[in-house]
Amino acid sequence: MTSETYDPETTSLRGFHMHVARFLDGSDTPRAYLDRCIEEIDRREGEVRAFATLNIEGARAAADASTRRYANRAPLSEIDGMPFGVKDLFETEDMPTECGSPIFKDNHTGRDCALIAGLREAGAIILGKTVTTEFAFYNPGPTRNPFDTSRTPGGSSSGSGAAVGAGFVPVAIGSQVVGSLIRPSSYNANFGFKPSFGAINREGAYSNLSQTALGTHAATLTDAWMSARVAAKFCGGDPGHIGLTGDVAMPASVHPARLARFESAGWEKTSPEIRAKFDALINKLSAAGAPMAGRSDNARLEGFEQLMAPALDVTNDICGYEFLWPLRYYHRRDPASISENIAARLVDWEKISADQYAVLLDKRRAMRAAHEALSDEFTALITLSALGPAPKGHDWTGDPIYAVNSSILGAPAISLPVLEAEGMPLGIQLIGYPRKDRELFACARWVLDVLGLKP
Amino acid sequence: MTSETYDPETTSLRGFHMHVARFLDGSDTPRAYLDRCIEEIDRREGEVRAFATLNIEGARAAADASTRRYANRAPLSEIDGMPFGVKDLFETEDMPTECGSPIFKDNHTGRDCALIAGLREAGAIILGKTVTTEFAFYNPGPTRNPFDTSRTPGGSSSGSGAAVGAGFVPVAIGSQVVGSLIRPSSYNANFGFKPSFGAINREGAYSNLSQTALGTHAATLTDAWMSARVAAKFCGGDPGHIGLTGDVAMPASVHPARLARFESAGWEKTSPEIRAKFDALINKLSAAGAPMAGRSDNARLEGFEQLMAPALDVTNDICGYEFLWPLRYYHRRDPASISENIAARLVDWEKISADQYAVLLDKRRAMRAAHEALSDEFTALITLSALGPAPKGHDWTGDPIYAVNSSILGAPAISLPVLEAEGMPLGIQLIGYPRKDRELFACARWVLDVLGLKP
Repeated sequence: MTSETYDPETTSLRGFHMHVARFLDGSDTPRAYLDRCIEEIDRREGEVRAFATLNIEGARAAADASTRRYANRAPLSEIDGMPFGVKDLFETEDMPTECGSPIFKDNHTGRDCALIAGLREAGAIILGKTVTTEFAFYNPGPTRNPFDTSRTPGGSSSGSGAAVGAGFVPVAIGSQVVGSLIRPSSYNANFGFKPSFGAINREGAYSNLSQTALGTHAATLTDAWMSARVAAKFCGGDPGHIGLTGDVAMPASVHPARLARFESAGWEKTSPEIRAKFDALINKLSAAGAPMAGRSDNARLEGFEQLMAPALDVTNDICGYEFLWPLRYYHRRDPASISENIAARLVDWEKISADQYAVLLDKRRAMRAAHEALSDEFTALITLSALGPAPKGHDWTGDPIYAVNSSILGAPAISLPVLEAEGMPLGIQLIGYPRKDRELFACARWVLDVLGLKP
Repeated sequence: MTSETYDPETTSLRGFHMHVARFLDGSDTPRAYLDRCIEEIDRREGEVRAFATLNIEGARAAADASTRRYANRAPLSEIDGMPFGVKDLFETEDMPTECGSPIFKDNHTGRDCALIAGLREAGAIILGKTVTTEFAFYNPGPTRNPFDTSRTPGGSSSGSGAAVGAGFVPVAIGSQVVGSLIRPSSYNANFGFKPSFGAINREGAYSNLSQTALGTHAATLTDAWMSARVAAKFCGGDPGHIGLTGDVAMPASVHPARLARFESAGWEKTSPEIRAKFDALINKLSAAGAPMAGRSDNARLEGFEQLMAPALDVTNDICGYEFLWPLRYYHRRDPASISENIAARLVDWEKISADQYAVLLDKRRAMRAAHEALSDEFTALITLSALGPAPKGHDWTGDPIYAVNSSILGAPAISLPVLEAEGMPLGIQLIGYPRKDRELFACARWVLDVLGLKP
C-alpha cells in the first residue's frame, strides 16, 4: 500500500500562511519551504502524477528571490514565496499549456495569463502545471488520488486537487464550470474555494464558458482565501466585474444568522451512510447554535429545491452549446484529435438551437434570482460537496451533482474537508451569495471552530 | 492625385448580396467575384495598405469550392463565397495574428477563432487580415484613407474600413470598444455595424474588454446585416449571450415611431459647417414624416444628454483598467515592445483602483438604464458618426467622441455614409437598443429610402 491515510491535522500543517512569520524572522525561508515541497514531489509524484509539467529550476530561482525579499523585510505581498500548482488550462510563459488534449501538445504561448502574471507580481512561485481532463471536461488524465491511488482524484482539476492533497504544494489553481473544483477538493481533502462568477480574471486561460470561475485548492481555509484574494488584487476580476474584494487577512469567525440545509438533486443519489454522516454534522452545528432550516420545514427552501432540481442538466446543455466552439471546429478539422467521449457528446450538443439556449439562460437566471432572494433569511446554504468519497477506478472522475449548484448560481462555494467515509476524505460545502465571498469565509471559519479545526 | 473621389453609387454596386442570383444562374461565380476583388487590391493596395496579410491562394481555393457549390445549387449559407477582410486581432489557422504589435510578429496560433470558424463553415472566404492599430488601441499602422491617401483611415479597425472603402472586399470584420468600428466606417464610406454587446462570439479574438463588440464594415447596408447575422448563426454570441437573432434576410423598411436627435459630448466639438449638414439631414427626415425630438424640446433627452456627457472619459478609464492585463505585463517583461504612447497611458491606468473601477461600472450601468428607458418613446437615437471627415495626416486616427456612445451603452449602432464634407465621406449614426439589432436595420433602411439610396 503506497497511499497514505487521511489526516487533516498533518495536511493543515502545510498551510503557507503559518510560515510567513518565520520567513520574516529568518528561522525559515521560501527556498527551504519550496525544497520541502519538492521533496514530497520527489517522494510521491511517481504514483500520484499530479503534474503535467514542472519547472523546478525556475521555481528555485523565484524562491531565492523571495528569500532575499523577506531577508530585506520587503515581501511583495502576503503570498510572496508561496508555491503554486496551476491547472494546465492557464497560459504560462515558461511552460506549455496543453489543456489535457493532444491538440495542444507542446503549446508554448510565451505569455502568462492574467492570473499567473498577477501571482508572479505578488511574488508567488509557479512550480508546475497540474493535470486536467481533456479540455477540462471529459477523459481523465494519469493522476491518482493520493489517499488511495486505486481511486480517482476527481476532475477536471485533477492534478490541482491531488497535488494539494498529497502535500506537494500548499495551494493550486483550479477552475469550475460544472463541478471541477469542489468535487476534486472533496476527494482530496482540500479546502476548495470556487469564487463568485467573475471574481478572478480569466483572460489568457482556456476557460471561457459563461459559468467558469477560477479558484483555489488549498491545505488550509486561510490559504484558500488569501491566495485567491491576493491573486484578484494583482489581476482583477473578469472584465466588467469588480473582482474579489475585502481585506486580504482571513476574516474572523462570524456566527451565521441561519443556515439552509440544501439537499439538491444529489440527495436522492446519496447513500444512507453518507446521509447519516451529513445529518450528524448538521445536528452538531445546530447544537452549537446555528439556526437551521430545510425543505421539510421551510416553504421557500422547498420551492428553491424544486427550481434547482434540473441544475445539472441545464448546466450541461449550456456548457455543451458554448463548447461547440472550439470543439466542433477541432473535431471537423481533425476527428482523431478529439476523444470518442467528447465526439459522442458533440452529436447531442449540435442539436441545441439558439432558441433552446435562450430558454436555458432564462432558467439559469430564474435560479439565480430565487437564490439571491434567500439572502434576507439565510447566511449560506450547507450541503455535501460530493456523493461520497472518491470512487474506485480511473476511467471516471466522479459525479458533479452536488458541485454544480454553485456553478449555475454564479455563487461562491467552499468545500471543507471535515467528513470521512471508507477511510477517505469527504467535503461539506457552504454556498454563499455572489460577491459576498469574504462573508462566506467568515461563516466557514465558524463551522471549523465548532468542529475544533484550525482555519 | 492617386486617390479616388467618393461615389456612394459605385461603392454600393460592390454589394455581395446582389450577385448571389447570378452565382445561382451561372452568369457570375464566386471565383470571378473574388478575382475582381483581387484586381482592385493589385491596383491600389500599394498605396492603401489595408492588409497585414493576404492569403490569395487559399482564398482562390475557397472561391473555387464555393463556385462548385453554387453550380450544384447548394450554397452553405447566404454568404457562401463572400470575400472577407478580417481585423488582425482574430485568430486564423492559415495566417498569423499580429494585433498591430511587434510582440505578436509571426504569431501563428494554428486555429480559427469562433467567428472565423463560423464564417468558413458558412462558405465565406477569408481573403486577408486587415491592419489594426497597436492592440486595437493607439499607434496607427501603415494604412491610408482610400478616398484621400493624405488622410487617416481612422482606427482601430483601420484596414477593415479602408479595404471596404477601396472596394477591395464587400465586407470586413472589425471590433469596437471605444470608437474603433463606427469612426473608420464614417471615414471610409462604409456601412458600419457595431452590434449589441455579446451579439457575435469573441472567443479566440484578442479582444476581451467588457465593452468590446465584433461587427461588420460593408459596402451596403444589406451586406452589413446579412454577414453579421449569418456569422452569429454559425458561431453564436458570446458565452452567456443569445447572440444576434432574427431572420437573415435584410428587414423591410419600417417608419420610425419617433427619433431622438442626440448631440452627445461630440456636438460642442463639431464645426458649424458639419452641424449644418447634420441638421439639414434631420430636417429632411422630419419632412419625410419622422417625428423628431431633441434635448431642447424633451426633458428626458436633456437628462440623458447630461448623463452621457462623460461617456468617453468613463470608457477610457474602464478600458484602461481592463487593459492592465496584458499591457502592464508585456511592458514589465519588455518595455521596448510597447509603444511610448501606450507606455505613457499605462502610468495613468495603473492609478485606477479597484474601487474606482467599481464606480465606473456603476456609472456605465446608470447610462444603460437611462438609455433603455427611452425605448418606450424613441425608435432610435440619431447622431453623427464622427466630428467630420477623416483628418489629414497619419499620426492620429481621429476622435472617437461620437462613436463611443454605443460602446458604453452596449447598444447596436449603424453608420450610414450619407454625408460629405471636404469631398470626403461622413457618416450619420443610428443607435438602437440592446438585442434589437434587426429593428435598427429596419429603421436605417427607412432613412436610406428617404434619401433615395439603396440598402
